[in-house]
Amino acid sequence: MILRLTTLIFIMAVSSVNAVHASELLVEKKSFTTKNFATVSGEVIPEVTIGWEAYGELNEAKDNVILITHFFSGNSHAAGKYTPNDPQSGYWDAIIGPGKAIDTNKYYVLSSDTLVNAFPHLPHVITTGPASINPKTGKPYGLDFPVVTIRDFVNVQHALITSLGINKLHAVVGASMGSLQALEWSVAYPDMVERMVSVIGAGAMDAWTITALEHWARPIKLDPNWNHGNYYDGEAPLQGLASTLTMITQQAMHPVAFNQSSPKQETLPQAALESVTNGLPATDFWFGAAAKNAPLADANHILYLVRANQLFVAGHEQDLATGLSKVKAKTLFLPAKNDLLLQPYLAKQAVEILKEQDKAPQYAEIDGIFGHLDGVYNIQSKATELAEFINQ
Amino acid sequence: MILRLTTLIFIMAVSSVNAVHASELLVEKKSFTTKNFATVSGEVIPEVTIGWEAYGELNEAKDNVILITHFFSGNSHAAGKYTPNDPQSGYWDAIIGPGKAIDTNKYYVLSSDTLVNAFPHLPHVITTGPASINPKTGKPYGLDFPVVTIRDFVNVQHALITSLGINKLHAVVGASMGSLQALEWSVAYPDMVERMVSVIGAGAMDAWTITALEHWARPIKLDPNWNHGNYYDGEAPLQGLASTLTMITQQAMHPVAFNQSSPKQETLPQAALESVTNGLPATDFWFGAAAKNAPLADANHILYLVRANQLFVAGHEQDLATGLSKVKAKTLFLPAKNDLLLQPYLAKQAVEILKEQDKAPQYAEIDGIFGHLDGVYNIQSKATELAEFINQ
Repeated sequence: MILRLTTLIFIMAVSSVNAVHASELLVEKKSFTTKNFATVSGEVIPEVTIGWEAYGELNEAKDNVILITHFFSGNSHAAGKYTPNDPQSGYWDAIIGPGKAIDTNKYYVLSSDTLVNAFPHLPHVITTGPASINPKTGKPYGLDFPVVTIRDFVNVQHALITSLGINKLHAVVGASMGSLQALEWSVAYPDMVERMVSVIGAGAMDAWTITALEHWARPIKLDPNWNHGNYYDGEAPLQGLASTLTMITQQAMHPVAFNQSSPKQETLPQAALESVTNGLPATDFWFGAAAKNAPLADANHILYLVRANQLFVAGHEQDLATGLSKVKAKTLFLPAKNDLLLQPYLAKQAVEILKEQDKAPQYAEIDGIFGHLDGVYNIQSKATELAEFINQ
Repeated sequence: MILRLTTLIFIMAVSSVNAVHASELLVEKKSFTTKNFATVSGEVIPEVTIGWEAYGELNEAKDNVILITHFFSGNSHAAGKYTPNDPQSGYWDAIIGPGKAIDTNKYYVLSSDTLVNAFPHLPHVITTGPASINPKTGKPYGLDFPVVTIRDFVNVQHALITSLGINKLHAVVGASMGSLQALEWSVAYPDMVERMVSVIGAGAMDAWTITALEHWARPIKLDPNWNHGNYYDGEAPLQGLASTLTMITQQAMHPVAFNQSSPKQETLPQAALESVTNGLPATDFWFGAAAKNAPLADANHILYLVRANQLFVAGHEQDLATGLSKVKAKTLFLPAKNDLLLQPYLAKQAVEILKEQDKAPQYAEIDGIFGHLDGVYNIQSKATELAEFINQ
């Protein structure tokens, strides 16, 4: 179980594979640059570069495109492998590939990195954010990087898509933070999006989630190495970052899976009884794993991701109903029944509004013991519903 | 709702009142000292002093005693008021008093502070912990204070009880961390405890809860003012402490009550869009309230409380079943249905074991929108069951 768990942490931190669904897709990471990108916050970023990858073939009409948008700690590697010996496939390899629910024999499946990716130091992640070089100073932006929103992520993807001559998306599908992008796509560009699938998602952040996200930011801000975002010449705030990553991992899970994945604690472990500064088996395990991943992440990027999520309400209109009134796509919402991070009430809120607007949203709950992560680990349990929705 | 909320935060931070159940009990805080207290960790504390208070009259046989044990951020003020003009009654005033579920016309209800109380700087809290003066050095113990366990809390209470000539407890009743003490009483002193009521409780900590508790410790440890526990001559780690207190408050609540209690967020608040260092309405509200309470708390005390809870398995035997095998008391478990902190599965685990041991534990779930806090706010919804159990 411990071995399994290493993968488990890794999925949150990086991307993942389910060995059962070993992929045959070979994937190439590509890069897209757009200049003078205007943000929702009213700033201009001189140059934005993000990574993307694609599975399947673009047809001549360029109307067989499915866009995949990624979760908070993920990246564009949604399916396939970069090399045949790659130990991991993309995180949704179970449902993306030849003959799978999102069938790459039919569709051109394009998956995009976001701005301010949490793990900019991972080899295959291409992103622009506070850790990127500010062309004006020749140094990393740090907190001079403008605050960005989910809409900004979508607008970068829009620039990518249109640069490829694509004007129509057969579907946009995303999990967690990816679901926010998928929904935002259908509000921001309603005439381009035909289908929208929100997995473990929400229509708008509520105070509960905004405050929960703030707890992810606090350990970073409290770490003296954070130094108000100026750490690129010195030590990164890795201790705070490790706390944050552990919190993300735990909140993305449900106690059942978390307990099964944790080492057992003997009664009154000697070290823990000697000092409150010593760890316990479970805390050493989870915080230790996060500490190993922390150097791949960037603390400021995580603060920016937190903020992008905190500001989310689909459409950025005065209320969710006004935003959702613009949606023309068919919609499918797949929250996870045991999700403790974005609980099903959040998806239900959007569904109820869409129903009132006579838009016939579809809704089904993913069961499982992983909680929020069931949107990744157990997505194949909804493969039939997903395929029917995509192909309808 | 905002006014209500201030009380809400206060209940977690300090103690509380429900105005509907305005108390007529006038209460006096008392103090108890025991010397050379031997801890489970094998240390000796030269002098331990804790506070306690009582409601009702001790009968001649001294067999009408009900002990109340308090939750993590609480103290012995479970019912009544210290002065007639006191704006707040004790936290369980709804069920403790003349003619109430725990009837002070019949019972002598004694409520005790614990060691390492989270809020030692509150006027009515009397406790011994890292912030207390070490007689050997004339300075606060800091991290030289020995690690203490729930059993130690119980052993101090045992010394208090027996000093009053009491050898039998009609019942021990506690919520959350108080439930751990109540259960530990029935394992450690099975011949003294006739009834045990565990409200929003657990029989043993699991990896999920141990790790969740560690997240309460981390902001304190990350705050540079914490200084490895040596801050009594300088600035206390109030920023870390405020993060911790906010986290405790949020996790003790359910999204429904939390959202109802939070200020509304306008779309794209300007300050939040300008910098990731600026707050949002909900985060300013909750972290701000916690920051006001932080000077009343002690950071090291909270680390010690976290550890005491992390080490809990009833009886400190090799497994929970062995510990529970010692229980002779009648038992009643009242978890809160929507609790996200100590979810009902934890109480159920103990109940299942007690059933296997043919001990007929009783079980009922408290409903409500407050989550964990329903064990305090909605306890009166189980007043009938509680009274029947106590009087049976």
